[in-house]
Amino acid sequence: MLYSFTNDYSEGCHPNILQRLTETNFTQQAGYGNDQFTLEAVAAIKTLCQKPEVEVHLVAGGTLANLIILGAFLKSYESVIAAETGHINNHEAGAIEATGHKIETVPTPDGKLTPATIQPLLNKFPEFHTVKPRIVYISNSTEIGTIYTKQELTDLSTFCKQNNLLLFMDGARLAMALSAPTNDVSLADVASLTDIFYLGATKCGGLIGEAIIITDPSLQKDFKYYIKQRGALMAKGRLFGMQFAELLRHNLMFELAAHANQMAQKIATQLQELGFTFLTPAQSNQIFPILPDTLIAELSKNYGFFVWKKMPENKSAVRLITSWATPEEKVDQFLQEVKVLSEKQN
Amino acid sequence: MLYSFTNDYSEGCHPNILQRLTETNFTQQAGYGNDQFTLEAVAAIKTLCQKPEVEVHLVAGGTLANLIILGAFLKSYESVIAAETGHINNHEAGAIEATGHKIETVPTPDGKLTPATIQPLLNKFPEFHTVKPRIVYISNSTEIGTIYTKQELTDLSTFCKQNNLLLFMDGARLAMALSAPTNDVSLADVASLTDIFYLGATKCGGLIGEAIIITDPSLQKDFKYYIKQRGALMAKGRLFGMQFAELLRHNLMFELAAHANQMAQKIATQLQELGFTFLTPAQSNQIFPILPDTLIAELSKNYGFFVWKKMPENKSAVRLITSWATPEEKVDQFLQEVKVLSEKQN
Amino acid sequence: MLYSFTNDYSEGCHPNILQRLTETNFTQQAGYGNDQFTLEAVAAIKTLCQKPEVEVHLVAGGTLANLIILGAFLKSYESVIAAETGHINNHEAGAIEATGHKIETVPTPDGKLTPATIQPLLNKFPEFHTVKPRIVYISNSTEIGTIYTKQELTDLSTFCKQNNLLLFMDGARLAMALSAPTNDVSLADVASLTDIFYLGATKCGGLIGEAIIITDPSLQKDFKYYIKQRGALMAKGRLFGMQFAELLRHNLMFELAAHANQMAQKIATQLQELGFTFLTPAQSNQIFPILPDTLIAELSKNYGFFVWKKMPENKSAVRLITSWATPEEKVDQFLQEVKVLSEKQN
Amino acid sequence: MLYSFTNDYSEGCHPNILQRLTETNFTQQAGYGNDQFTLEAVAAIKTLCQKPEVEVHLVAGGTLANLIILGAFLKSYESVIAAETGHINNHEAGAIEATGHKIETVPTPDGKLTPATIQPLLNKFPEFHTVKPRIVYISNSTEIGTIYTKQELTDLSTFCKQNNLLLFMDGARLAMALSAPTNDVSLADVASLTDIFYLGATKCGGLIGEAIIITDPSLQKDFKYYIKQRGALMAKGRLFGMQFAELLRHNLMFELAAHANQMAQKIATQLQELGFTFLTPAQSNQIFPILPDTLIAELSKNYGFFVWKKMPENKSAVRLITSWATPEEKVDQFLQEVKVLSEKQN
Repeated sequence: MLYSFTNDYSEGCHPNILQRLTETNFTQQAGYGNDQFTLEAVAAIKTLCQKPEVEVHLVAGGTLANLIILGAFLKSYESVIAAETGHINNHEAGAIEATGHKIETVPTPDGKLTPATIQPLLNKFPEFHTVKPRIVYISNSTEIGTIYTKQELTDLSTFCKQNNLLLFMDGARLAMALSAPTNDVSLADVASLTDIFYLGATKCGGLIGEAIIITDPSLQKDFKYYIKQRGALMAKGRLFGMQFAELLRHNLMFELAAHANQMAQKIATQLQELGFTFLTPAQSNQIFPILPDTLIAELSKNYGFFVWKKMPENKSAVRLITSWATPEEKVDQFLQEVKVLSEKQN
Repeated sequence: MLYSFTNDYSEGCHPNILQRLTETNFTQQAGYGNDQFTLEAVAAIKTLCQKPEVEVHLVAGGTLANLIILGAFLKSYESVIAAETGHINNHEAGAIEATGHKIETVPTPDGKLTPATIQPLLNKFPEFHTVKPRIVYISNSTEIGTIYTKQELTDLSTFCKQNNLLLFMDGARLAMALSAPTNDVSLADVASLTDIFYLGATKCGGLIGEAIIITDPSLQKDFKYYIKQRGALMAKGRLFGMQFAELLRHNLMFELAAHANQMAQKIATQLQELGFTFLTPAQSNQIFPILPDTLIAELSKNYGFFVWKKMPENKSAVRLITSWATPEEKVDQFLQEVKVLSEKQN
Repeated sequence: MLYSFTNDYSEGCHPNILQRLTETNFTQQAGYGNDQFTLEAVAAIKTLCQKPEVEVHLVAGGTLANLIILGAFLKSYESVIAAETGHINNHEAGAIEATGHKIETVPTPDGKLTPATIQPLLNKFPEFHTVKPRIVYISNSTEIGTIYTKQELTDLSTFCKQNNLLLFMDGARLAMALSAPTNDVSLADVASLTDIFYLGATKCGGLIGEAIIITDPSLQKDFKYYIKQRGALMAKGRLFGMQFAELLRHNLMFELAAHANQMAQKIATQLQELGFTFLTPAQSNQIFPILPDTLIAELSKNYGFFVWKKMPENKSAVRLITSWATPEEKVDQFLQEVKVLSEKQN
Repeated sequence: MLYSFTNDYSEGCHPNILQRLTETNFTQQAGYGNDQFTLEAVAAIKTLCQKPEVEVHLVAGGTLANLIILGAFLKSYESVIAAETGHINNHEAGAIEATGHKIETVPTPDGKLTPATIQPLLNKFPEFHTVKPRIVYISNSTEIGTIYTKQELTDLSTFCKQNNLLLFMDGARLAMALSAPTNDVSLADVASLTDIFYLGATKCGGLIGEAIIITDPSLQKDFKYYIKQRGALMAKGRLFGMQFAELLRHNLMFELAAHANQMAQKIATQLQELGFTFLTPAQSNQIFPILPDTLIAELSKNYGFFVWKKMPENKSAVRLITSWATPEEKVDQFLQEVKVLSEKQN
């Protein structure tokens, strides 16, 4: 295979992380997140959030973050509202239900929730016989590559406050969202508009780690118990601290995310020029072009990607993902092959 | 502080791991444990177990391993039996109960279970009104530094088979147990005598990772669902695979563990020569000498350790832990200081 | 209010039950379901099922039965498939999710599942990242008054067997389904075609109690532990045994159900004659006529019922429920009032 | 068998209940606890508690009450403290752990907790790695027949308030405790000194039902969701309301309990006169005399009771339980037989 566009976690991590891990390897550090690197990471996140009262916890992965957060903040009869395409609904093997909670879902064209689509779920009858919605879960960027605008987030935040709902953003690919060409949202906006969110390193330059940020001080007490209870309090917290300490130095994470986005946008632009359409707007580093099945079969010989959905007329939507580590020459090579193959097939 | 004997996870990892992470950093690998390093690690573990039919899964930490395993193999009305000192009982913030299961405990002098101490828990009355024991949880080495002999494990294994119980070994410090001076157990013995166990890297040369080994093929089906559901299936499984691939090459992990044990044994031997006694037998890299409180106060100025338990006559048991990274000169320095201080105090 | 058609649990129970409770009140009986009345009830159920190997357990209510059964037979990563209108999905305050399991739902016009609507939920991708369907939950009669034919149940049963799924029937109103005018299913058919089902007394002549019937012997072991663990093993099991012992004597329960159905059918027939249409086919004791809002407002002054759903043209579907205790003169009175009011309004 | 002293739920219920059930059988009532009988019962309980702000909920049984209450008021990392003999620890098949919570136990000679025995469980180390105690669970009368004095309850209540703990009393046999010869506690005292408790009908004159009383208004919000979610919200709440409406009219329940106690005390007094000793103080309707095994063998031919514990010198402690329905002539007959048999054996 020449290159895989299957996901954005095929490579290791940015070399700065490995270099500092090596340099500091024999320094003794306190365990369980009390090391100096974690402190450094937390300080950097607070600065980016422009909100010193946020509380930060580093955990290994996104599903772990989701189940800890939802398990912590929902009472047993309270539910979380998510888009049908939401990661917690489809790709976590029932992790949220395993903590005892119902996910109520909303069909969407683009993976994004709005006040209008949430509203019907709030009208429950009869009282006590149904679950009570308490958290709205959104992903930015979404599982299908779209991003939220500042206005959309503001509307959701206002709606949640009016309805006694918490707004929780899954930020496994938040760096890509905030570095996308059409983005108008800052990390400080996210910290201001959500009650809890996380910022992922795994898919943006790190080896492992998601930073949970609790922006609402009333939710912060005793949160570490939940982390420990779910098996997520790591002895060598230095490994997690280091990811964020390095990735947030001089904005590195967002530059890496911008590169990932640029590679995807380059592909999207040229596919559009070749006349192909897309399943969802190509806004970040995950794009979903609709290609003839014959072309897909040929491309699969040299490139890795995921066939997402059968479409009419012997076509399918495929998912192409680029990462911080995607070399531009691989993108060019791929585009050249698409061009040649589609000319040949026509 | 001159040196900390507080735990065995204060340093990073063996340099081989960082070196190979760096060398292979830009190789694209499949996610979720399907990378080549994990395959390499699994092969090495199968060889050490002398049992090709074992199934291996790598997860981030010990509490996570415990809750996944017990959550997977217990029906909701089944319990796990553990020593009162067992990690699952005392130091996991209710992680096992959070998966819905009762821990039934046995008081022990040395942290070790025996058929005689388990037997009374099997006589339940009346039927259906009590939980039904199904798994026996043991730690080797134990939370208080002791290790199991081959005969003890064989007796437990036989007893469990006779009583339809599964035997599960928490091996967060299994490398130290198997490298202890008085040990007569091999990893193949463990694989043969238990139904499930894990081998920890975090405390023995790795940055992160515990290898869950399911030795009973009838327990292996669909286990990966439980891993995913608990948030433990990591996108960049390469990080975990690398720990074990490197630590199991040429027996490195067990050499590192032997070093940790030797450092502790050196301290233990000299403290005994100075006339000090111990709370539990000093068998591995965790030792519990009983020292005068005045001596403890002085030592605390330069050395980190944990005061474990108040004892009569103004003494306390302290916990001293050495690791693969403990330099012998720090041990010598510490012993010299003990000697000088205790002479001064007498 | 002249009469309430709000539900079928507004009255007490058939007098035979009270009479026998009184007669046997001072007989000492064993607790926890080992009393003679429970034995009598179990024997009657086995006879009706024409399947002596079924196991029977009596519990207090439908939600309790649902959560015990699904909690018992699902592994933590397995899901239950239900119609969107299914009681477990909408009216149990997240009871199933509180046992740790995801409900996967299917939209339906009539509250009934078919192989064709279930099939798409079986195609999961990628493995281990999604839940694994294991149980198909159906209600007969459904929450919207429809009933299954023998052919439909046979098709579902075959499909489930082919796909390693268990078929579970919620029979809170099974007596009404089996006594409905168009029904062609017997209790023995249900016992033969499902793996687990329950037969409800609460809504058909009893004060309390649902009889869980496990038809598949491989599912029967240790089930009583689950009942105890969910708080459903009652000290005075005689109360539950008595409901079924009396209601199943000489087919009483099914005669009572037939009466409930006849009262609803009488209403349905006359409403149809008056030109009204229905939201769902009027097949059992729950019917959903669509009436003008002005008529509804008038009727509400004297009769209790539930306004189910707003419809176009200032109409609404209402839910009318009759029971074993509904007097025919109340039905006639109600119909007379509808007739007079609708003539006046036209 | 001449008579069973095995438990206090062998008979039905006080005839007043059956009579009123019969009289009101065809009155239509609202479902789910909104019926007039439940309202009547709630009013009676409020009066007895001398605390109009308490909230009352009626559920079917004790295990159900325990799991709903502890599941509702504990966060996932919080534990409940109980005596080792506590019902939740030994006889509920892991019901509390199934809601996700650890029970921390204290050994006691008499089944009663004190501040001194609870205190050591509050000193946890290290923070976040252990569960956090939040509720103290006591039973009155206890599972081994003893009762709390007002001073003991006051001390516990004060201690709990000082340590941010809730005090929860399991009152499955509270009527017997409050009617015991040496009792100095009133129901109003219980309402004043605990945060939550329940008053059982099942073992004191009713067919079924425990009244959960939440005395702390800050705990009352949304409690009915928990009841529904655990399957405990019964359609025909009239059945439960009737038990308490009748049993609390003119203090009937406490008179019935006093009778049960008197029967047990009569046995205890005469056994003492015959020279027998007791495992625990004989204070209520459960007594634990220590009898020669030969005598036990003879008595078992005509009387039902439970052999509780093997004792030295070929003796055993047996459990004898009397109830509201125990006829005095059965007690006399039993005592006569003990007398004759023990004379013969001497």
